Amino acid sequence: MAQITLSLEAIEQLATDCLMTNGMDALNAGLLARIMQMAERDGSLSHGLFRLPAFVAGLRSGKINGSARPQVEAASPSLIRLDGDLGAAPHAHHVGIPLLAAAARKTGVAVLAIRRSFHMSALWPEVEAIAEAGLVGLACTSYMPSVAPAGATKALFGTDPIAFAWPRHAAPPLVYDMATAAMAMGEVQVAARDGHSLPEGTGLDRHGQPSTDPKAIVDGGVLLPFGGVKGSAIALMVELLSGPLVGAHFSDETKAADTADGGPPVGGQFLLALNPDLISAGADWQGQADSFFERLTGLPGPGVRLPGARRHKNRLDTGPRPLNEELIDKIKALL
Amino acid sequence: MAQITLSLEAIEQLATDCLMTNGMDALNAGLLARIMQMAERDGSLSHGLFRLPAFVAGLRSGKINGSARPQVEAASPSLIRLDGDLGAAPHAHHVGIPLLAAAARKTGVAVLAIRRSFHMSALWPEVEAIAEAGLVGLACTSYMPSVAPAGATKALFGTDPIAFAWPRHAAPPLVYDMATAAMAMGEVQVAARDGHSLPEGTGLDRHGQPSTDPKAIVDGGVLLPFGGVKGSAIALMVELLSGPLVGAHFSDETKAADTADGGPPVGGQFLLALNPDLISAGADWQGQADSFFERLTGLPGPGVRLPGARRHKNRLDTGPRPLNEELIDKIKALL
Repeated sequence: MAQITLSLEAIEQLATDCLMTNGMDALNAGLLARIMQMAERDGSLSHGLFRLPAFVAGLRSGKINGSARPQVEAASPSLIRLDGDLGAAPHAHHVGIPLLAAAARKTGVAVLAIRRSFHMSALWPEVEAIAEAGLVGLACTSYMPSVAPAGATKALFGTDPIAFAWPRHAAPPLVYDMATAAMAMGEVQVAARDGHSLPEGTGLDRHGQPSTDPKAIVDGGVLLPFGGVKGSAIALMVELLSGPLVGAHFSDETKAADTADGGPPVGGQFLLALNPDLISAGADWQGQADSFFERLTGLPGPGVRLPGARRHKNRLDTGPRPLNEELIDKIKALL
Repeated sequence: MAQITLSLEAIEQLATDCLMTNGMDALNAGLLARIMQMAERDGSLSHGLFRLPAFVAGLRSGKINGSARPQVEAASPSLIRLDGDLGAAPHAHHVGIPLLAAAARKTGVAVLAIRRSFHMSALWPEVEAIAEAGLVGLACTSYMPSVAPAGATKALFGTDPIAFAWPRHAAPPLVYDMATAAMAMGEVQVAARDGHSLPEGTGLDRHGQPSTDPKAIVDGGVLLPFGGVKGSAIALMVELLSGPLVGAHFSDETKAADTADGGPPVGGQFLLALNPDLISAGADWQGQADSFFERLTGLPGPGVRLPGARRHKNRLDTGPRPLNEELIDKIKALL
């Protein structure tokens, strides 16, 4: 696979140019391009420039509003409802997260409910932003069906990620962002290509039988939730919180409503912020948690890694990033 | 195993009498006995009378305050902090959950943060109470270390349950309550007794090696979180939310502080209530979710059961319940 290297600035500029050429205004394009650059910077490659062609498809079909101005309604001191105006999600976050953080700082807990927005990026940037405001963050969203609930042989759930962040004073926040699917379909495809077998519980073959053969899953099979029945229950919660709770769709409704133009489908998102200073009544929650993280990473065994540590390590490198040349050519053809 | 049958009323009375004989006042005893009766009624046997001797141990040692009067502080329109006054958790819930529900109804979201309380029952009664108030409920609590985080070979996490409830108009709420441990140690002991092997990922043997032999796990081994690294991340979130966030302990701190009198350890709990009417801005979230549940249970495959359905079915039977005679004798000896 041929690679070329680009600086982080060049990555962000390429994305901005490509989005603006395809009808996005400077504000929306700049915010979306920045999120893609952050993904490349942190090594979240499947959420970086890789997503750009799909956003272009959505802009070209007219599904995504390139001039979106998310509309906010502060429904209570603890609830912000946000209509994404059919724009890309980073603009909605840019508008909504500061309001969410201000509300949670004041009342201890707040919800940001987003509707009519196009989310096709990582979830960690928004919970990390919440944690950088000194708050605990939780976020989830659904997508299109690709996961069979435990006990079923057909897809109904999306990969349904959930992201969580815990703020720290003297260190970057603890952050995780994980699909509630056992594995991303892209990873299964890579295993099929490389001839690796999969852990039990990753997916079912086309006949609905459990399989550890990635080819059998790719070929008409289906993914499973992580962790069997329990993971399936977590995925169900994500479907409910990021669907009907926020006035948006379940994954299967999302698919039914999508225009299949190659762009991401419109959807909703649930975000929660919690203020430990207020909730703990002024206890030393930071020192207490930091000590726990030390005990956690100091446990005997192959090793416990704090969630998000790898991303933060990648981030320290401000140098150029290697990129798939084929992807860059594809993007340049969209300019 | 010899059994005797008791009516639900007799179960509740036996628990009340036993608690009062051992120094609990009528208010605290009545509330705790009712939760135990509900567990027996619904078939949650490990959370019913089975827990009574431990509560008696805690009362006799003086650790549990039998005359507790939980103290509430409404810290904001969306945050209720509650000091359990070292009493059993059902009293704290009895006081706190109506306030939590009232706050969430008004502002869309509210947190109930409980400290200094003794929780050794199921978590579903509290989220079910939240759902019966028309709200979405989430609750979690930690306990004493029995689970090795993914990547470690020694216990640090508790079984760390998480409970979730979704309200429904025309049906009982969807409710689940699950340990983030792959399996309860009690279930592993039963498998050891019956000579069954365990699913991969349930636990490690005394040498820190994965084992599907329940005897190897019981004999100096340790449980694992459900779902590997991802389940471990959920367990870590439970430790943080029900520990430092609410001004309470992590599981390992809980153990270090416990008096080892045979009673439950003092701890904290995190409860969240969300108001779908307000958050969804008046969408038909109920009809939308009910249709989804129909599609979910109608999927092809061995069958998807809605969480909580079994408990609600058990509940329809108002007749007497079979009980372990040895347990009843043990309880009678405490009278």
